[in-house]
Amino acid sequence: MKKLIPLLACAALLAHFPLSAQEAKPAPAPGEIVAAAKAEEWTAIAPSDLLIMDIAADAKGKPRRVVIQLMPAPFSQGWVGNIRKLAAAKFWDGTSVNRVQDNYVVQWGDATEKKALPDGLAVVPEREYAGRGAALNGWMEQQAAGPFGLTLKDIYGTSHPMMGWPLASANKEMWPVHCYGMVGVGRNLSPDTGTGAELYTVIGHAPRHLDRNIALVGRVIEGIEHLSSLPRGTGALGFYKKEEERVRILSVRIGDVASDVPAFEYLSTESASFAAYADARANRRDPFFNVPAGGADICNIPVPARRKPVK
Amino acid sequence: MKKLIPLLACAALLAHFPLSAQEAKPAPAPGEIVAAAKAEEWTAIAPSDLLIMDIAADAKGKPRRVVIQLMPAPFSQGWVGNIRKLAAAKFWDGTSVNRVQDNYVVQWGDATEKKALPDGLAVVPEREYAGRGAALNGWMEQQAAGPFGLTLKDIYGTSHPMMGWPLASANKEMWPVHCYGMVGVGRNLSPDTGTGAELYTVIGHAPRHLDRNIALVGRVIEGIEHLSSLPRGTGALGFYKKEEERVRILSVRIGDVASDVPAFEYLSTESASFAAYADARANRRDPFFNVPAGGADICNIPVPARRKPVK
Repeated sequence: MKKLIPLLACAALLAHFPLSAQEAKPAPAPGEIVAAAKAEEWTAIAPSDLLIMDIAADAKGKPRRVVIQLMPAPFSQGWVGNIRKLAAAKFWDGTSVNRVQDNYVVQWGDATEKKALPDGLAVVPEREYAGRGAALNGWMEQQAAGPFGLTLKDIYGTSHPMMGWPLASANKEMWPVHCYGMVGVGRNLSPDTGTGAELYTVIGHAPRHLDRNIALVGRVIEGIEHLSSLPRGTGALGFYKKEEERVRILSVRIGDVASDVPAFEYLSTESASFAAYADARANRRDPFFNVPAGGADICNIPVPARRKPVK
Repeated sequence: MKKLIPLLACAALLAHFPLSAQEAKPAPAPGEIVAAAKAEEWTAIAPSDLLIMDIAADAKGKPRRVVIQLMPAPFSQGWVGNIRKLAAAKFWDGTSVNRVQDNYVVQWGDATEKKALPDGLAVVPEREYAGRGAALNGWMEQQAAGPFGLTLKDIYGTSHPMMGWPLASANKEMWPVHCYGMVGVGRNLSPDTGTGAELYTVIGHAPRHLDRNIALVGRVIEGIEHLSSLPRGTGALGFYKKEEERVRILSVRIGDVASDVPAFEYLSTESASFAAYADARANRRDPFFNVPAGGADICNIPVPARRKPVK
């Protein structure tokens, strides 16, 4: 009987862990898979596709920089073009972060709404909230055929981590998704679509009801904590009530104009390591976990982005 | 031709808006539906089911109180019982908030891990991460039969806003879901399940991979901004590196012992107003929105909770 007990215990242990955990080495966590990805699986982000926002130093005098990667074609390019013009005109310098609503968004721009906009901003139509037809340049067909392997079905429809971005699709349209850290364009009631002068980023559970109702123009890839940890506004919708509560924006520049911008890269969503990472996000097998979820929604598979390691 | 243009414009307008928006009054936003709910649709929360945590005042000397509603039977009652004992023993007084990881969790407890725990804490088995069988007391059968109308299918399986809580189910088990603001029990590697002395709350996109892997014991119903807006920790996993970064916990008490606790209530998930609210969360028809999402995941339908209005 004495021998039997360890055997039973061992069988129970084997039954308890998923197969991969039975190997000598524990299954890697998603972050470990990303850290082990090959250099060629990372895609460089052009400095000209970065928006660098410096806000006032914190209470301890520490500088606060937020790095945003702008959305590529064919998505939201009318607004992205406006943002390039606004940055070139130094429009945001001296404006402020004006709204911090818990579990929702941080919003910034000209609180007075009276500052003159630069000339030549496009008025972008609502249909540009999604890409479609020839403008998609075969993305949807490519997605269906591979090598874009990952198609997720959730309560909102079909989504795809693809070409480095969280996208969703239906009816031959494709659009970016409001995940944590995504950056969008504030607007007034329809048919207004916003110029791009008023921006926000998501700091809570993905507000998917905003998809296709607002333009998404990028995502924060570094420094979101400088926005997400700001005091919440106590006014309606989380707006700061008083001027002194607002956080001053020192400057916003495109990445090839701003100073001290390191090289950034993201993990290709079409790489083997991304596929392994996405699978591990859906089915955690690393030692902490007992029961894999069996799935992950697109916003729980954020595309890894980082400073390019210095060799 | 002059007459035709307005008619065409009108038809286009009608086609553009969902039916309800064609009525004279615009469709209500989810918050407006909640505000209009009848008094009898709200369920009182017993003060004995609240955990009141007072942390050190902010930089401006403003008191910071976090109000947590504890999970009801049949879920996680072993840990909830421990939490009641820990609060009665004033265990958390003088401990601290030790970890703030962006888009993930805020965690608190005894940073030294050396403080003596009160006697008589239960060691709760892992199977208690979910409820099942007779302990569920017919909840799943009731859910299937109604009046618990709302069953959501998402990438994680089946979920239900039910009896006031976000729950998921599969294989005759039911368990609470890691939505924003939910409170769970920190633990070490399996088979440790935690005592309840180390707690965390979710401050980002719902980390559903934690479901059934950690005990959920409640949710923050007021004051989460005092935790979610704290500076992010710069150590591994968002832990604060230095003692002076930690935020002191002044006291944690059950609601019938703490001072100055107002009456709280939540909107019954079985009420008509909750059904209308959930539908409006999935299909925004209020004037800002053009395209309804057609769905909402369970964490995008947070159960409204508030101070009971004073008549």
